[in-house]
Amino acid sequence: MDREKVFKNIKDHFEEHVERLRELVRQPSISAENYGIRECANLIRDYLRRLGCKDARLVESSGNPVVYGYYDAGADKTVIIYMMYDTQPADEPGWIVPPLGGHVIDMPPFGKCLVARGAINTKGELGAFLNACESITAVGEEIPLNLIFVAEGEEELGSRHLPEFINEYVSVLKKADAVFFPTADQDEKGKVQMSLGVKGIVYFELELDGESWGYGPTEFDIHGSNKAWVDSPTLRMIQALSTLTSKDGNEVLVDGFYDNVAPPSPEDMELIEKLEKTFDEETVKKEMKVKRFIDDVHGKEALLKYLYSPTLNIDGIWSGYIGPGTKTVLPHKITVKMDVRLVPNMTVEEVIPKIRRHLDKNGFKEIKITRLEEGYEWAKTSVREPAVQAVIKTYREFGYEPEIWPHMAGSAPFCMFNREPLNLPFVEGGIGHGGRAHAPNEYIVVEEGGPTGGLITLEKSYVAILDNLSKML
Amino acid sequence: MDREKVFKNIKDHFEEHVERLRELVRQPSISAENYGIRECANLIRDYLRRLGCKDARLVESSGNPVVYGYYDAGADKTVIIYMMYDTQPADEPGWIVPPLGGHVIDMPPFGKCLVARGAINTKGELGAFLNACESITAVGEEIPLNLIFVAEGEEELGSRHLPEFINEYVSVLKKADAVFFPTADQDEKGKVQMSLGVKGIVYFELELDGESWGYGPTEFDIHGSNKAWVDSPTLRMIQALSTLTSKDGNEVLVDGFYDNVAPPSPEDMELIEKLEKTFDEETVKKEMKVKRFIDDVHGKEALLKYLYSPTLNIDGIWSGYIGPGTKTVLPHKITVKMDVRLVPNMTVEEVIPKIRRHLDKNGFKEIKITRLEEGYEWAKTSVREPAVQAVIKTYREFGYEPEIWPHMAGSAPFCMFNREPLNLPFVEGGIGHGGRAHAPNEYIVVEEGGPTGGLITLEKSYVAILDNLSKML
Repeated sequence: MDREKVFKNIKDHFEEHVERLRELVRQPSISAENYGIRECANLIRDYLRRLGCKDARLVESSGNPVVYGYYDAGADKTVIIYMMYDTQPADEPGWIVPPLGGHVIDMPPFGKCLVARGAINTKGELGAFLNACESITAVGEEIPLNLIFVAEGEEELGSRHLPEFINEYVSVLKKADAVFFPTADQDEKGKVQMSLGVKGIVYFELELDGESWGYGPTEFDIHGSNKAWVDSPTLRMIQALSTLTSKDGNEVLVDGFYDNVAPPSPEDMELIEKLEKTFDEETVKKEMKVKRFIDDVHGKEALLKYLYSPTLNIDGIWSGYIGPGTKTVLPHKITVKMDVRLVPNMTVEEVIPKIRRHLDKNGFKEIKITRLEEGYEWAKTSVREPAVQAVIKTYREFGYEPEIWPHMAGSAPFCMFNREPLNLPFVEGGIGHGGRAHAPNEYIVVEEGGPTGGLITLEKSYVAILDNLSKML
Repeated sequence: MDREKVFKNIKDHFEEHVERLRELVRQPSISAENYGIRECANLIRDYLRRLGCKDARLVESSGNPVVYGYYDAGADKTVIIYMMYDTQPADEPGWIVPPLGGHVIDMPPFGKCLVARGAINTKGELGAFLNACESITAVGEEIPLNLIFVAEGEEELGSRHLPEFINEYVSVLKKADAVFFPTADQDEKGKVQMSLGVKGIVYFELELDGESWGYGPTEFDIHGSNKAWVDSPTLRMIQALSTLTSKDGNEVLVDGFYDNVAPPSPEDMELIEKLEKTFDEETVKKEMKVKRFIDDVHGKEALLKYLYSPTLNIDGIWSGYIGPGTKTVLPHKITVKMDVRLVPNMTVEEVIPKIRRHLDKNGFKEIKITRLEEGYEWAKTSVREPAVQAVIKTYREFGYEPEIWPHMAGSAPFCMFNREPLNLPFVEGGIGHGGRAHAPNEYIVVEEGGPTGGLITLEKSYVAILDNLSKML
């Protein structure tokens, strides 16, 4: 492939390429609210057809459709391009632009950024990858791999129906040699970070109301003065929650919670030793606006805590009157959204039963647990896999020595590809930067010249990754 | 006074009288949201002028204006008519009509009811009392007392600026012989309940965020996976809250919380002995949709618990993502709205320092306490006061033997009238029914013929109370 010809096309069509990203974020696709999902799926299917996928379609499931596309390059090797087209809700306070508006604004020191829900998680990368592919074919080159596009619309809901698609298309998918997920892996200063896996996750709600408990108000919040003779589901839930962790909130006190936690493997420890040298903890903290880590740990200790601790987190909690000023009510119900992140060798299936047993043992049988997602298992690909090596080679070609993380603390449905029935190496990558996923003012950098790559660099890196994958797989 | 002539006028003008109540609830006056306050105050001032108050005005304070009116009847005795014109917010789910719409609908078994925010708390009674006064003068009779109207607009905010008004008008107010608060005191079955006082209240917020704590995210909610190495203000607050009560949420574990709780006085115990005989606990529970009281107590034990227990209540709690579905965030902040109800001889001033000391002692110095209201002291008027006896006499004239409660568990600014500087007997009363204050579908009965009085009976009872007060004070 004549990379330079492709790169020139990318540069020449910068404005149109930004426009595609804006179009994507303007098309809502908030899976938690079932908002704009099908319209967004149709948009992506049309993109795939435009690219030249002879077969591009919405594959229905019990949930949101998967956008499937097959690009036949007549190549020896085939790669699954995993993408997600759904996003988180956009209801957080603090947005400086409308989160679905597609606004490109200056954000020092990065230069012009697209600030929008989904900008970095992950419509920005999805659009950039398609732009890159179009630039290859636009200059008369051929994409060097057959591509199987799998864009799912329920990643933010735990990819609950993706296994249905995988089972239905297993014979097609099994023909692939690897799975590639286009991401943008530079940090704020431009350092390239590469992650070889993910933690698993289980997401659930705890709920207590007077009706199911038998104590407290059963149907509505009542006047607060009745606390004198009526039980409070809210105060009761507080007691139950308090038994789950240590006083600082950081050690999980559920029996057997840590039983299956494995120490880092030798390969992981090797990676951690290297990682420690370049790990820029001040930048990490600055991005999150966090002053210090738990117990004020630093360096390797912080890395080990981050990567090898399973967690119990309250994502949200609410009960009673949550408006301005005062309203005296005794609430009839309290709801708590929680997630548990799994490290090797924990499993999704072990979590809820352990929490159920813990609550029962502590006398809180009345508290209801509802699993909200199917959950993901943890997933890891070895650094020695050719697919991983192809991405590392790309980074070096662009002048970056990547900082390699044995996995990240976040979760994604990679287990669905690198475990049974597909057992494929899974790799992600891309040279670009964005931030504030799941937070206000989520952004992706589009302009070149700042500390990180912009959209042009990101698209070039995808072209090079495809090229290297075709040679190394 | 020729009561029958007045009663006939009330009956003949039923439709117009209902209309006044509808006008009142349609005029929003939500003090927590500063919504419609001044418009509602102006409306009431105009009502007072129409009634014949030569002096009717808005008295400005640092907060919402007090509507003051003086009705000079040339009488020997003077009574302060205490009223409130503000309401709670109307944002609870579950309303079957728009809460500010002024809808009169059939609500079996009561017959036609006005269902609206403020219907019973307390625009319904305010409108009914003014209707009653107008019916007296309309038939050529004279109101038998000079009336000092004091309608405040911050009752739902803890009457925080009412003392400013009282101090400014103290020389006028001191001329009064008693204070009367028009209420509607029948329960669902029509039994008249009379309450001689209130508990005190302190309302405050507990708050913890990463910025003030120094741990956790400081400015916005961050990706939930960071729980592995970033502290959670939410989990920490849970730990702090859990130290405040026993496991069932009912015993307050704050040092010295119960120190100043006095046993019921001999006069109170006399009232309780009588009250026990008519106390209809099933109706009380049915109105609240509560299956059982704390510890499943009944009868006298329930009454003692209700009236003589100080309480610590969570009115509202929220943190993080509280929308549908899943969103994995580590919240940067948690807010808890709480109130403490005071029984004799507790004081407003003792509460916050005790909670502060408790949190500090347990290692939670980082949790911020913000008092949201000035608070009310508890207040009680003796059953032997002539003002109380005048209301009791009225009930008996209407065929009701009132069930007398030594005080109620709710709170109101009665302390501002029956303590220094005014030291006036404070009495409330009225024969009518409504319910669901602070809850969806708040209502007041307007139609006669059901188990309770309607608007006509309520207005008649106010006429008779004024008549009896004029003879017995």
